[in-house]
Amino acid sequence: MREPVGSVAATDTRSPRMDRGDIEEAERRLAGRVWRTPVIRSDQLDALCGARLWLKTENLQRGGSFKVRGALLAVERLVASGSRGVIAQSTGNHAIAVALATREYGLPTVVVLPSDAAPAKIRRIREAGAHVVTAGTVLADRVAALEELRELHGYDAIDPYQNPHVVAGQGTATAELIGQVAVQGARLDAVVVPVGGGSAVAGAALAAEGRDVAVIGAEPLAVPAFTEALRAGRPVTVPAGRTIADGLRPDRIGDLPFDLAHRAVRRVVTVPEAAIADALRAAFLHARLVIEPAAATALAAALEHASGHGADVGVLISGGNVEPSLMASLLADHEAGAPRTAAR
Amino acid sequence: MREPVGSVAATDTRSPRMDRGDIEEAERRLAGRVWRTPVIRSDQLDALCGARLWLKTENLQRGGSFKVRGALLAVERLVASGSRGVIAQSTGNHAIAVALATREYGLPTVVVLPSDAAPAKIRRIREAGAHVVTAGTVLADRVAALEELRELHGYDAIDPYQNPHVVAGQGTATAELIGQVAVQGARLDAVVVPVGGGSAVAGAALAAEGRDVAVIGAEPLAVPAFTEALRAGRPVTVPAGRTIADGLRPDRIGDLPFDLAHRAVRRVVTVPEAAIADALRAAFLHARLVIEPAAATALAAALEHASGHGADVGVLISGGNVEPSLMASLLADHEAGAPRTAAR
Repeated sequence: MREPVGSVAATDTRSPRMDRGDIEEAERRLAGRVWRTPVIRSDQLDALCGARLWLKTENLQRGGSFKVRGALLAVERLVASGSRGVIAQSTGNHAIAVALATREYGLPTVVVLPSDAAPAKIRRIREAGAHVVTAGTVLADRVAALEELRELHGYDAIDPYQNPHVVAGQGTATAELIGQVAVQGARLDAVVVPVGGGSAVAGAALAAEGRDVAVIGAEPLAVPAFTEALRAGRPVTVPAGRTIADGLRPDRIGDLPFDLAHRAVRRVVTVPEAAIADALRAAFLHARLVIEPAAATALAAALEHASGHGADVGVLISGGNVEPSLMASLLADHEAGAPRTAAR
Repeated sequence: MREPVGSVAATDTRSPRMDRGDIEEAERRLAGRVWRTPVIRSDQLDALCGARLWLKTENLQRGGSFKVRGALLAVERLVASGSRGVIAQSTGNHAIAVALATREYGLPTVVVLPSDAAPAKIRRIREAGAHVVTAGTVLADRVAALEELRELHGYDAIDPYQNPHVVAGQGTATAELIGQVAVQGARLDAVVVPVGGGSAVAGAALAAEGRDVAVIGAEPLAVPAFTEALRAGRPVTVPAGRTIADGLRPDRIGDLPFDLAHRAVRRVVTVPEAAIADALRAAFLHARLVIEPAAATALAAALEHASGHGADVGVLISGGNVEPSLMASLLADHEAGAPRTAAR
């Protein structure tokens, strides 16, 4: 059996070395524990963008997002090491995923969310039995609260961006997508993934390694954390504008994801709010899928740019935990004939 | 090669004899022409009903419903026989399906819809290039208009309920479902399908033949056409009450579907409007699927009764062409805390 992912010397402060083998190992460990979500096609979406889109429907995953993949692997390791309890900070989906994973082992769990977290996500976390604490609206507030609580309880933290098990787990979604398309006799030219804290894009970069599949990141124009990090050559904190993509609100990409992804990504697309809303509606009307705004950010980038990247383009539909009230108002806007706006 | 489906002597007025072999032949003819839609699971829906539900997601099918299956087979036969054009009546999805199928062959097409047809369905039919005529709100009005136009144009009619190719095509959805569940190592105890004109339940009855899978029909309490036909021992026209399930508004089950299904179905569930709305919301929130009210009628029956039929229950999610405005208002109701109401 290969070395555990992310093993580094204790004195080494660099990011752990990871490669495609870590994703393949994670796939083996997750087999039978997560849904192998379908890859679906839509003639109407294809007509809109001039390419064949292959949607990896992780909105249909356990817990409603791909994040259960990484959480299961990370929690499994903590359980094996005799953990007393788990603490995590998140904009929502990582917390849901951690809560579902710890429930399997009866492990006490505290999650730290922003005060403007989506109510649907908070409900789901409480249903899974975790304790919810809110702290501020930006990443630094949550990290401060988490550190305090971690010391108080003696719990182990599962970082949504820096934990190599999490990154490896998230990468299995893209690895599955590439494999599922191949089984259908096609070959992806590119895969578009949403970028928040960076675990999806880092996992995708690892999964695509040596496969000649371009990795495209998509982030809200309002919170261009990866775009600015690429410009600066290192993760930087950006002013967090308002975005409906609650899952992509982290105002700084993680060090580990940046190290793993910054050379591997072909391009990062920044998506205006109107295009995120349009893509969310398009998924509803043309693919009959309920997706959340983070996933719609990737779909918007694909609808606008897919044909520039090849004939066959995968899209990581990262989750489906959208607020019913947001969906209702977006559908009402549609009835009123809101115009379609392009991603840049 | 076996005899074409539904072949009968010209003087024979009985329904054509059909069996599971007709479904298998239809599956071969449709291979590669329709999506093999995924069968998905939801832990949350399972928890609601106390059984494992296997959702056959024909809302993700070409044209947004399973009806493209039967339409393709029927149109193919007409093209082979030198048809000059096609005419069809429908509450919506059969018309979309016929329009998509005839477009492949450049065959002129007229469809007759009720005047209260869902605008989203009318839009989709026009996009596919068919001519839309509206006539009344009940089946008899549409049939009268169809007969008149058929003589006028010399077109061939594709009946949504009586055409054996249509019934065989619709049955392939249930056949696929049974097979896909088996591949995952499980065995369906029952399958729940919506009943309007009857092609889905007749197709399901044929597909389940000899397989020890109970077929459960689900129809709106407001239009109990199958329930009343079973009571009368023959198809009867029922008073058509108001229902949001536009696809299940036919006020009479077809003769052919009745003949094929009346002995094979285990039970027909009549579903109140509130339970249809609840199931539509449940699909949104817990399965992240956009489904139309006809499909929600089957899901509602499954949520209420699945545990009484066994551990593993399939549900034909027949389509996803729901009006955005209806969805918006149902989600707004949910926010207001509408209570959950049970199917009877």
